[in-house]
Amino acid sequence: MAMSDTASTAPLSLARCSINTATLGHNLPIEEVIELVARAGFGGIAPWRRDLEGRDAAAIGRRIREAGLDVSGYCRSTYFPAATAEQFRANVADNRRAIDEAAALGAPCFVLVVGSLPEGGRDLASARAQVAEGIALLLDHARASGVALALEPLHPMYAGDRSCVTSLPEALALCEALDPEGRGGINTVIDVYHLWWDWRLAGDIRRAGEEGRIGAFHVCDWLVPTTDLLLDRGMMGDGVIDVRGIRAEVEQAGYRGFVETEIFSRHWWSRPAAEVLETCARRLVELC
Amino acid sequence: MAMSDTASTAPLSLARCSINTATLGHNLPIEEVIELVARAGFGGIAPWRRDLEGRDAAAIGRRIREAGLDVSGYCRSTYFPAATAEQFRANVADNRRAIDEAAALGAPCFVLVVGSLPEGGRDLASARAQVAEGIALLLDHARASGVALALEPLHPMYAGDRSCVTSLPEALALCEALDPEGRGGINTVIDVYHLWWDWRLAGDIRRAGEEGRIGAFHVCDWLVPTTDLLLDRGMMGDGVIDVRGIRAEVEQAGYRGFVETEIFSRHWWSRPAAEVLETCARRLVELC
Repeated sequence: MAMSDTASTAPLSLARCSINTATLGHNLPIEEVIELVARAGFGGIAPWRRDLEGRDAAAIGRRIREAGLDVSGYCRSTYFPAATAEQFRANVADNRRAIDEAAALGAPCFVLVVGSLPEGGRDLASARAQVAEGIALLLDHARASGVALALEPLHPMYAGDRSCVTSLPEALALCEALDPEGRGGINTVIDVYHLWWDWRLAGDIRRAGEEGRIGAFHVCDWLVPTTDLLLDRGMMGDGVIDVRGIRAEVEQAGYRGFVETEIFSRHWWSRPAAEVLETCARRLVELC
Repeated sequence: MAMSDTASTAPLSLARCSINTATLGHNLPIEEVIELVARAGFGGIAPWRRDLEGRDAAAIGRRIREAGLDVSGYCRSTYFPAATAEQFRANVADNRRAIDEAAALGAPCFVLVVGSLPEGGRDLASARAQVAEGIALLLDHARASGVALALEPLHPMYAGDRSCVTSLPEALALCEALDPEGRGGINTVIDVYHLWWDWRLAGDIRRAGEEGRIGAFHVCDWLVPTTDLLLDRGMMGDGVIDVRGIRAEVEQAGYRGFVETEIFSRHWWSRPAAEVLETCARRLVELC
């Protein structure tokens, strides 16, 4: 399980690591997850909207800070593209409410998983145009709320349904188009699972850093074979991604934020939360 | 199932369409497949090496031509990257023999699916270097044999095991590096399944045409949901790819070769070959 030799990368301390709650399969109430994550030694947590259902976001934010944790991000947007203008407006409005929740929670960013073709559609260019329009409608509100919109390019195997934004350069181009003056309020999520295959990744990460557009860094691993497109992500070290090498590139590009573990996995979701967290902690420190 | 409106694209005639034998699941002897494909009205066929096992390639080539068909390509290479130098040399030698078979068959191109990380590996850059070295060792032989090496970028979901070359620009860069003077003998396969998601596809196809590097054009469809990474490709029209739109781009880029159907699908492999061929024919003419 040796990762690449990146002597220049400082060892990872758990204080710099965050747990995305999806890693635990949303099996437990958020209050319990906060306690478990803090007890396991992590420095941050990234909740999902579903974790906050029926709760007060500000109260959950306080609870997170009282547990000694920071919020590394808030997941995730409602897909933007829609078959009708009415549905598109509803999607944007829903994301506006989520930005308010992110602000109440104290999250530095709201993760945008942008969606793709509406039912029956085949026009990726039109989906991309809707995504750009939808984000444009949210950007001022995000800025005023102190929450960055963190645009997450997803793996191309999700291009049909989950994200028409499939690469880091595409996400960076969208940032540039929506924020040409570099005022901020919009950046990107670099998730090794989605981007590790790209032959130009190192240079793109460097550019993302130069442009101040790295808002979050997510890790997990790519299993060979992968048996499910959505729910078979691997624990760091169990797959083929050079996670440590990519972390080195992200940090050389100036990123100083959390290393956030996000694993969608039927296997890990069936394990006790404490075991999953302990495994994450060990793999992060030893291998990432 | 309406595809995009591309009025400039001439209707597709079956004479310009080819069947990749993988579409029929290699369930029948090649002699029978040749008859079925010719009887269904197609103009071409693309056999796999496994179809020729125990046969004389030149004799199969004659049989194909006597049936009124052209060979649109020969599939496919042994993966190049290996954990040992000895295995790497064996992989290259095996591909050299396959080029001889392609020449005997009368195939215009030998499709390179290049492989990726050797067992236990995580170093994509090293895999890519092995691929470049392996192809370089074959190029003169391919030229002397009159068989182009058709480099097929695969979908990024195969980056761990099947292909470290995951996009058209990466394949074009490899062509340029190995054939900087544009002598030929190396080009690319544009398969809609592997490339449809790419936000820069239209421009990349244009460039591939300008550089004379479009060696083959493959079609099938991307199903939503896709339930298996390898064996759940869709019949044209059953998924979300704008096949007609991409065909228009490929032809506007100057490509005049076959439109080759290649579908890996447990579903279609379980159907009678005549039904599969009839469905392909109808969908190609009506939708592509």
